[in-house]
Amino acid sequence: MEGKEEDVRLGANKFSERQPIGTSAQTDKDYKEPPPAPLFEPGELSSWSFYRAGIAEFIATFLFLYITVLTVMGVVKSPTKCGTVGIQGIAWAFGGMIFALVYCTAGISGGHINPAVTFGLLLARKLSLTRALFYMVMQTLGAICGAGVVKGFMGKNQFTTLGGGANTVAHGYTKGSGLGAEIVGTFVLVYTVFSATDAKRSARDSHVPLLAPLPIGFAVFLVHLATIPITGTGINPARSLGAAIIFNKDHAWNDHWIFWVGPFIGAALAAVYHQLVIRAIPFKSRS
Amino acid sequence: MEGKEEDVRLGANKFSERQPIGTSAQTDKDYKEPPPAPLFEPGELSSWSFYRAGIAEFIATFLFLYITVLTVMGVVKSPTKCGTVGIQGIAWAFGGMIFALVYCTAGISGGHINPAVTFGLLLARKLSLTRALFYMVMQTLGAICGAGVVKGFMGKNQFTTLGGGANTVAHGYTKGSGLGAEIVGTFVLVYTVFSATDAKRSARDSHVPLLAPLPIGFAVFLVHLATIPITGTGINPARSLGAAIIFNKDHAWNDHWIFWVGPFIGAALAAVYHQLVIRAIPFKSRS
Amino acid sequence: MEGKEEDVRLGANKFSERQPIGTSAQTDKDYKEPPPAPLFEPGELSSWSFYRAGIAEFIATFLFLYITVLTVMGVVKSPTKCGTVGIQGIAWAFGGMIFALVYCTAGISGGHINPAVTFGLLLARKLSLTRALFYMVMQTLGAICGAGVVKGFMGKNQFTTLGGGANTVAHGYTKGSGLGAEIVGTFVLVYTVFSATDAKRSARDSHVPLLAPLPIGFAVFLVHLATIPITGTGINPARSLGAAIIFNKDHAWNDHWIFWVGPFIGAALAAVYHQLVIRAIPFKSRS
Amino acid sequence: MEGKEEDVRLGANKFSERQPIGTSAQTDKDYKEPPPAPLFEPGELSSWSFYRAGIAEFIATFLFLYITVLTVMGVVKSPTKCGTVGIQGIAWAFGGMIFALVYCTAGISGGHINPAVTFGLLLARKLSLTRALFYMVMQTLGAICGAGVVKGFMGKNQFTTLGGGANTVAHGYTKGSGLGAEIVGTFVLVYTVFSATDAKRSARDSHVPLLAPLPIGFAVFLVHLATIPITGTGINPARSLGAAIIFNKDHAWNDHWIFWVGPFIGAALAAVYHQLVIRAIPFKSRS
Repeated sequence: MEGKEEDVRLGANKFSERQPIGTSAQTDKDYKEPPPAPLFEPGELSSWSFYRAGIAEFIATFLFLYITVLTVMGVVKSPTKCGTVGIQGIAWAFGGMIFALVYCTAGISGGHINPAVTFGLLLARKLSLTRALFYMVMQTLGAICGAGVVKGFMGKNQFTTLGGGANTVAHGYTKGSGLGAEIVGTFVLVYTVFSATDAKRSARDSHVPLLAPLPIGFAVFLVHLATIPITGTGINPARSLGAAIIFNKDHAWNDHWIFWVGPFIGAALAAVYHQLVIRAIPFKSRS
Repeated sequence: MEGKEEDVRLGANKFSERQPIGTSAQTDKDYKEPPPAPLFEPGELSSWSFYRAGIAEFIATFLFLYITVLTVMGVVKSPTKCGTVGIQGIAWAFGGMIFALVYCTAGISGGHINPAVTFGLLLARKLSLTRALFYMVMQTLGAICGAGVVKGFMGKNQFTTLGGGANTVAHGYTKGSGLGAEIVGTFVLVYTVFSATDAKRSARDSHVPLLAPLPIGFAVFLVHLATIPITGTGINPARSLGAAIIFNKDHAWNDHWIFWVGPFIGAALAAVYHQLVIRAIPFKSRS
Repeated sequence: MEGKEEDVRLGANKFSERQPIGTSAQTDKDYKEPPPAPLFEPGELSSWSFYRAGIAEFIATFLFLYITVLTVMGVVKSPTKCGTVGIQGIAWAFGGMIFALVYCTAGISGGHINPAVTFGLLLARKLSLTRALFYMVMQTLGAICGAGVVKGFMGKNQFTTLGGGANTVAHGYTKGSGLGAEIVGTFVLVYTVFSATDAKRSARDSHVPLLAPLPIGFAVFLVHLATIPITGTGINPARSLGAAIIFNKDHAWNDHWIFWVGPFIGAALAAVYHQLVIRAIPFKSRS
Repeated sequence: MEGKEEDVRLGANKFSERQPIGTSAQTDKDYKEPPPAPLFEPGELSSWSFYRAGIAEFIATFLFLYITVLTVMGVVKSPTKCGTVGIQGIAWAFGGMIFALVYCTAGISGGHINPAVTFGLLLARKLSLTRALFYMVMQTLGAICGAGVVKGFMGKNQFTTLGGGANTVAHGYTKGSGLGAEIVGTFVLVYTVFSATDAKRSARDSHVPLLAPLPIGFAVFLVHLATIPITGTGINPARSLGAAIIFNKDHAWNDHWIFWVGPFIGAALAAVYHQLVIRAIPFKSRS
């Protein structure tokens, strides 16, 4: 019956506790914690679905960078922001694309589109190390191609003048604040991913994987509303690296470590919070 | 069969009434009013899920204040609002965070993230007094920490100059108007919470707890659209207190009572409206 | 088997037709056209659910006018629109409130919140004439109270100077264009209401009544995006009348007939389109 | 058992592969690939549902052009964009209308409202050539009427001065960039349509056809956020042709081929990607 235990008992008795509204977490109805994924699963490598998942991650991250960097360029190019979709429009582009792309690719690759999400799910042992590395490579390649196509459309000079959508810490903020903003922002995203895709929740209601893209997309939108003025908002190392490689100026590279270290710390904290506090997996009684 | 009666009979006959479209409230299909929660439930205190719920409320309110106050700071800081996400972006930050956080925490704590919501549900006897007080303390602590982190990122001087996201009644409005705006605004929110989480509705369709976060988040967004010009929009005493403590200026403290009294009155009115008018619980025949 | 026939046969043979994607309209699975509502149903008048539905319409229309007119006032009051939620924010207020309120009241009253919607559904015989008239009276009273509370908050002089959220045909447009805009706008709304609440659709999927509020709210939002520059967008006679009574200036009253005639024509066209073309009810074979 | 094979086996063994979260694509549960639609299906022509579908496409495209072109006119007319719904509001009008209209017409015609979508689905053999051509004609007629009504409301001079919502390649971009933007933009849309309406996905969860309109609408919204500054965003030949015919100026006609060639190439690429890579249909083992 391992993995079917719902609650960690602090006292001696298991009692029937009244649930606050909207709560059905205490019922064990047909819930089963899946076993942790192995680090290496050689069989994956001879499956078409493995490569198809990588291609889907490539295409999704390509489209993500293409739409978002093009939106950023359109806003930055205009002398008056009122004649553009505005900073809020940029936030919608990032969040909306994640919503649509997670919806489209969830059934093919799990819909990560972000190395920090892949990293967080790897820590929770939701996928193999092989698959995680393959996803990260495909995400990064997709991001580079997406930003590259925008550069092709805009012309090199204009693209570079307008900043190329690359992430840097804004004037007036310390590198520490930028790193902190990336950590908390990625925590919001990966925490939402864990909450939305919890195996327990899925067991209770099979529609969750279909509804999950909306709060995940909103999480990305909201973090952009808050931290565009600080770092331009990374919370996605593939997005930051793709834009940096195509932009390729020193001041983008100087801050670039922040957009890998921050998201990976944030994703790790979200994985720890979900596994240790919310799911309390290490403390489960092994009956 | 107590609690299974649907309609309060004004006349002598129970007749089959035709329902307007979109209405299935008259069917009793597997609906059961849950018994009121006791005021004190000692067993809760020895359950991990009780403390986990409090931690979830703390983290959610922390993230709520962090994202929303940071968004407010970004808008207020810019001399021209067109180069920011704008006041509408602030409204999206508040409403969107409530949507995402209620979605994430509904299965853990019920997803209150707001002492006024907890108070309204307590009046409707949906949770114990012990749990309600514990939630309110954790929400307030989370709010203080969230606003504090934003102050850390912005620097003390800048944070104070920009108003710190604290709620005050705007110039040109009386304290009475501010109090009224808080009362009606919180009524909109808590009325939506009651409608979305009605046990009867849940019985008819098990997806409601999963769909509920969207209208609840929208309610918060809409109240902000309307009342940011009046009070900055509280409708959440933890949010108001957290911002006030970190901001800590006299003019925020002078109006502060409005942001406790207004939301609690609004929540109480919503609880009364839902229980007396919509559910007509006191008039139910005890057959 | 009356009412179970799906297709009107133009030729002699009923054949198995391939459906385009996303289409399952041709299956008759457990679908049953409800019988038309009687014009007068005396039993309704002795049922608590009848009066409760009226109260719910009153409260919903009250909150609708309160939030939307307050949002309009906030935008109009500011000398620079960039420091407000903007015209788009006004459109969100109208559409978002309809989304949230239809969600909250659909199970109680059907969630009309608009005499034009009630009129369209009456033409399709979805509710009795008694109920329709009662709803319209309650909606209008709610709208008057909602606008009145805003006037109380703003002060009489300021409210009148800022236009009070009343509908008029804008300078540069003829009354004919204004009437046309109201007709097509209300058609969009009532057509969405019919599509979202079609008994056939509900039979195929019981979640539709729960999902329906979102496209209905979006329809209101979209019509506001398009026609705020022309008429301020009525498409809801209760909203127009409530604002006009509280504003009470000649130029609002001069155009006022447009905001009753237009919505009622638009709703009637939508009812005809849905019943005659989409559902083809009069041509159904009575087998 | 043809059409029930899930995975193309690269190696010799079919093995049980662990799925990443949010993935259930590997289960074959009651999934059945529908047979390709015939090019000509004479029986369709004597069915009311065939003509009804065409009428629904006409009405939907009419309402689509009416609301969107009117929104564009309102924004272009104003000297200061801050007093309008803004460019972001235009993007919402296009995306929101597609959301609402796909929701309303999905059960009647499949909810294409766009010749490029019809073309992509024709390539995937989801509907007959007869039906595809009929839909395209009705969509184009609806678009012409919708733009015509807006011209009637605005007056001929004003409509022409304001550009009539017609698509052209903006100054500063090459025709190649414009064509590329249309190709990738339509790919995003049609890829989302294929993902959302996949027969396999529908088999797993019957709510998908009801949830699908939201990501499809968002895809249209997002492409508009990104490419309004480049081409005004076509990705819908009926929309481009309708606006061009009513506007009828040389500079709109000179670029007009881009808004047919681009969307059709993009739709074809999305059909190829979905059928070859995601569904791997040609490589399926015919067991």
